[in-house]
Amino acid sequence: MVRVGIFGATGYTGVELIRILSKHEKVEIKYLSSQSYNTKAISDVYSSLIGFCDKELEDLNLEKAMSECDVIFTALPSGHASKIAREAVKKGVKVIDLGADFRFDDYSVYKKWYGGDYENYEGIKRVYGLPEVYRETIKEAEVVGNPGCYPTSVILGLMPLLKNGIIEGEVIVDSKSGVSGAGHNPSHNNMYAECNENIKAYNVAKHRHVPEMEQELSKAFGEKVSVVFTPHLTPMTRGILSTMYCKLKKDMDINTVYNVYTDFYKNEYFVKVLQPGNYPATKNVYGSNFCHIGFEVDKHTNTLIVMSAIDNLVKGASGQAVQNMNIMFGINENTGLDIVPIYP
Amino acid sequence: MVRVGIFGATGYTGVELIRILSKHEKVEIKYLSSQSYNTKAISDVYSSLIGFCDKELEDLNLEKAMSECDVIFTALPSGHASKIAREAVKKGVKVIDLGADFRFDDYSVYKKWYGGDYENYEGIKRVYGLPEVYRETIKEAEVVGNPGCYPTSVILGLMPLLKNGIIEGEVIVDSKSGVSGAGHNPSHNNMYAECNENIKAYNVAKHRHVPEMEQELSKAFGEKVSVVFTPHLTPMTRGILSTMYCKLKKDMDINTVYNVYTDFYKNEYFVKVLQPGNYPATKNVYGSNFCHIGFEVDKHTNTLIVMSAIDNLVKGASGQAVQNMNIMFGINENTGLDIVPIYP
Amino acid sequence: MVRVGIFGATGYTGVELIRILSKHEKVEIKYLSSQSYNTKAISDVYSSLIGFCDKELEDLNLEKAMSECDVIFTALPSGHASKIAREAVKKGVKVIDLGADFRFDDYSVYKKWYGGDYENYEGIKRVYGLPEVYRETIKEAEVVGNPGCYPTSVILGLMPLLKNGIIEGEVIVDSKSGVSGAGHNPSHNNMYAECNENIKAYNVAKHRHVPEMEQELSKAFGEKVSVVFTPHLTPMTRGILSTMYCKLKKDMDINTVYNVYTDFYKNEYFVKVLQPGNYPATKNVYGSNFCHIGFEVDKHTNTLIVMSAIDNLVKGASGQAVQNMNIMFGINENTGLDIVPIYP
Amino acid sequence: MVRVGIFGATGYTGVELIRILSKHEKVEIKYLSSQSYNTKAISDVYSSLIGFCDKELEDLNLEKAMSECDVIFTALPSGHASKIAREAVKKGVKVIDLGADFRFDDYSVYKKWYGGDYENYEGIKRVYGLPEVYRETIKEAEVVGNPGCYPTSVILGLMPLLKNGIIEGEVIVDSKSGVSGAGHNPSHNNMYAECNENIKAYNVAKHRHVPEMEQELSKAFGEKVSVVFTPHLTPMTRGILSTMYCKLKKDMDINTVYNVYTDFYKNEYFVKVLQPGNYPATKNVYGSNFCHIGFEVDKHTNTLIVMSAIDNLVKGASGQAVQNMNIMFGINENTGLDIVPIYP
Repeated sequence: MVRVGIFGATGYTGVELIRILSKHEKVEIKYLSSQSYNTKAISDVYSSLIGFCDKELEDLNLEKAMSECDVIFTALPSGHASKIAREAVKKGVKVIDLGADFRFDDYSVYKKWYGGDYENYEGIKRVYGLPEVYRETIKEAEVVGNPGCYPTSVILGLMPLLKNGIIEGEVIVDSKSGVSGAGHNPSHNNMYAECNENIKAYNVAKHRHVPEMEQELSKAFGEKVSVVFTPHLTPMTRGILSTMYCKLKKDMDINTVYNVYTDFYKNEYFVKVLQPGNYPATKNVYGSNFCHIGFEVDKHTNTLIVMSAIDNLVKGASGQAVQNMNIMFGINENTGLDIVPIYP
Repeated sequence: MVRVGIFGATGYTGVELIRILSKHEKVEIKYLSSQSYNTKAISDVYSSLIGFCDKELEDLNLEKAMSECDVIFTALPSGHASKIAREAVKKGVKVIDLGADFRFDDYSVYKKWYGGDYENYEGIKRVYGLPEVYRETIKEAEVVGNPGCYPTSVILGLMPLLKNGIIEGEVIVDSKSGVSGAGHNPSHNNMYAECNENIKAYNVAKHRHVPEMEQELSKAFGEKVSVVFTPHLTPMTRGILSTMYCKLKKDMDINTVYNVYTDFYKNEYFVKVLQPGNYPATKNVYGSNFCHIGFEVDKHTNTLIVMSAIDNLVKGASGQAVQNMNIMFGINENTGLDIVPIYP
Repeated sequence: MVRVGIFGATGYTGVELIRILSKHEKVEIKYLSSQSYNTKAISDVYSSLIGFCDKELEDLNLEKAMSECDVIFTALPSGHASKIAREAVKKGVKVIDLGADFRFDDYSVYKKWYGGDYENYEGIKRVYGLPEVYRETIKEAEVVGNPGCYPTSVILGLMPLLKNGIIEGEVIVDSKSGVSGAGHNPSHNNMYAECNENIKAYNVAKHRHVPEMEQELSKAFGEKVSVVFTPHLTPMTRGILSTMYCKLKKDMDINTVYNVYTDFYKNEYFVKVLQPGNYPATKNVYGSNFCHIGFEVDKHTNTLIVMSAIDNLVKGASGQAVQNMNIMFGINENTGLDIVPIYP
Repeated sequence: MVRVGIFGATGYTGVELIRILSKHEKVEIKYLSSQSYNTKAISDVYSSLIGFCDKELEDLNLEKAMSECDVIFTALPSGHASKIAREAVKKGVKVIDLGADFRFDDYSVYKKWYGGDYENYEGIKRVYGLPEVYRETIKEAEVVGNPGCYPTSVILGLMPLLKNGIIEGEVIVDSKSGVSGAGHNPSHNNMYAECNENIKAYNVAKHRHVPEMEQELSKAFGEKVSVVFTPHLTPMTRGILSTMYCKLKKDMDINTVYNVYTDFYKNEYFVKVLQPGNYPATKNVYGSNFCHIGFEVDKHTNTLIVMSAIDNLVKGASGQAVQNMNIMFGINENTGLDIVPIYP
């Protein structure tokens, strides 16, 4: 059994980790930290977990956690995971960070977008935790930087095109996210009365997920990819739909595109390529670790429109983190994650 | 392996059965009928099922189904299951009906509220499929009348009180249901633009679930129980919350009530009694087979207010049907049903 | 022109007052206070008001407000309006309080439920601002205690029955409110991800609106009325639906009940009695000052079920406050309030 | 008083016309047709209209309508308005069509996208009813083709750029629409349980609004404009947000862009240009005839992102139709339309 700790257990990604891990046959949840609710049981905070996980929440105690766990999931504000990881790896405890601390190859990019100081960034054996791209490296990693929710939907959507050099290197990405992406801390941005019956863009062309996307897309393409990115807050709790507009380098019909995708993802359990004429809908992946991808060719402008849908809290966060854990510990990759989407 | 057929597979209770059964380790889905979508694969109709169940939908063929299945779930309009069941039991195939055809002890009550003619009603070895009450009978049943969604929430909420004779025999029930309860056939009643930002009562004091509740509550109480019932259509997809107002026969504090409930349900996996001060919320049982129950005593009127929450499509329909199947086939009762509620 | 000030202009009742008053032909908005947003224009906080009201928000300055205004609307936390009102009436400035400070006839009841000290409560010429009941007194009032949202829906729904002595003196009220009733300050209670796809009760049998209802219902009835009250948080922004269960003193058919209501409300513009068979829906009064009332008789238990729907921010708060202002200043009662509900 | 008839009064654009026109001081509603509900009063179908419009619905009788009305609004399926208009103009009755019958300059384009035969298309003195562009022509028009909802949001958003030749002639438009845009006829596409907690694209790169946009944008630009268009069904009742991606011909900072917009729309009451840093939200125009426009410059790709928000049923349909009527009859343009958006 893999002994697991979660730092920041009462945020939405924390509780989603517990939903998945409490039924994971190879895992034992040993340690849960929470700054706001310590001494309470997690199921007192989230009644949905009654009977599945009634563990007490503790103040963050790294020593204790390291002594009890084989892996720690950090679901903390940016900047906190780096210190924790340096200590943990010394003790042979693996770290999967759901924040941004380990997503960047280049420390200066991290620093520019997220700020803060960071000792010996390069010294850590980290990997960008997108299994469909880095599976082999993840197997050996000490520290995983779990991808952001938007980048997951975008990179999975564009990877087959960029790896095959089919499109130009500038992509327009219009993403729509559910409100749970704004986290569990109450603010005007995530209030019901403000979000319901409302859709609006935010952080247009300056969201912190842009450098993350560009890093990964450029590596896949072999040259610089530029992303024009507009995220939208959508009146729903879960789900991300990313609509991506790409210029085809040459004429290509939809069946050819379909074959490129199915070939690229033929061994991937969690990526489903929809047949031509079918478009992904966030509801079709609700509560699951799947990514649905569809597309359409606009012949009159030679534009390829790619759409990808994920559940932002599962494949976009906690589900992917568990997928990474499975890989790191040699467990079958879909263990605990083979959840059928809830529909309707 | 239990070989399973579903008649009416593309309604919302049908697709929910498939969500659950496709991951049930003791079940093989052998036969799916659909009038509207036959020849298509179920996963072409519901993309959420891609990879979990890609079976082809067929026209309803009872002979074929009986030859391939050990049990048939009927999710059909009222009146269709009775004929099917009579044939099936002759062949030793069990039937679990998600409609109303087998819910009534008294044929005249069924006929009054649902109409239609029905040969030899009494000849069938049927049972009202509420495991928390009829588990032992269900084990031996040939035909199960799966309870209605509202009655499930109400009977579970009131049973401990009535069995213990604590309250008077007239109960007021104010229920709030998500729109999926209105089914998969489009009508003005279940349109988005009509239901969103809207709550309203319907079928006030004349809903067909009243006689079903009164039948079961009266049997538990030992004398006639009358239910004043108002269902409300609530702007959400899933969930039923029933708020029940009961007159206490004598003064009783909330801890005593709590003990009555915890004692009554001490062996029930799917019923969770919330501690005093906590009230059930439909979101806390979303996608799961659990029923959460809470209560409050209004001392100034000596009224006991009981609240119960279920997912109308799971414990209120398909989950309970699978629970019944497990019991009928000697399978551990929570097999395939041990699903953590999705929150948020 | 009536010169108007609003204290607490950036709460939801504040901004709703501005929506209505900015198009009120007899009103000039002179003064807006806000603690959180002072120095900003109100239309910078609420873009919906661009061009309709671009006034600057100021720190609360009572002297200034009194010198510029004929009436002040106070939309402040409980306890603040009482001091303001005492000063204002000395200067001949009228006060309409959207909080609870002036709703109670008996100071000890106010103190028990809301706490705080209150000098010379009885010295102020106040009135409970429900025009359908107290119109004549409102005309002469210096200070109006604008009714709570739930009490408005409940008192309007029950008044014809109690005034006519048709029902017993104990009533069960099951109310469903939109989330805007929880105010503009972010908290876990009013977050999107917590409220969406969720319905739950809160403050069961101990909500502060109970004594307010009982005060007014008892006066109408001539003897003590007891209210069993359960409010529910419903996944919608606006609207209250109250479902009320009353025991008829003697048999009465629905047409007789209908006549009681239509007779009682025959001169009331803002109360619409629906014909038998029609039930109110919150969407049918969305954005308007109307109250829709419908009912059903449950003959098998001799229970009368009354349903009333209002927009909690309009007839339940700001619209009713403007209605009171119109009455106090001799303006036609529906001036500025003759808004057609938005449907769908 | 302008005497008004509405053909197709019980669709969502019909009932929205009635909401607006019933309070329009220069209008008398004389005639309402409905195929589905004739002989009922409109307020029996839509209780929101009780007291505002209780007129009886009739079978469509053109002769009668023409004899009683100065103008007829046609809210009918495509193809029906053309015949009606030819008769009406002979009698001097003006026609404002909310469908597509009169939106196209080139009959062959109409025929290609909408099908059907159409006698003497060119013979009618029609105009594309976007007042911000064609106000002078509308004044003299006999027949107005009221713009589609998506094209309204897109053309208003792009017009200042194209008229000033600032951007390239290929534009990517990603639009998000509320479900009321799918109309009042129930179908799987507009069911609550299918649309709630769901966002998905539809008719990608082949929506019938593309030729309409391209016609108007190309005329403004002086050369062919190509639109890549992806509409998305969004879980809300009302509202359209269009996010548009344009290539700037040369570097331009955001303040320059802002000045282009404010200058272009300086005399337009219903178009609000938001200050740099503010983005439009559909909720801020809810129930109103306003269009809010905002933008951002992505310097690293020289892309200008324009966002526009309207209420699809008001500025996107019925409000704009009334605006056209006002212009045609010499009435002040915002009469009956000066409605403050409802927020929250």
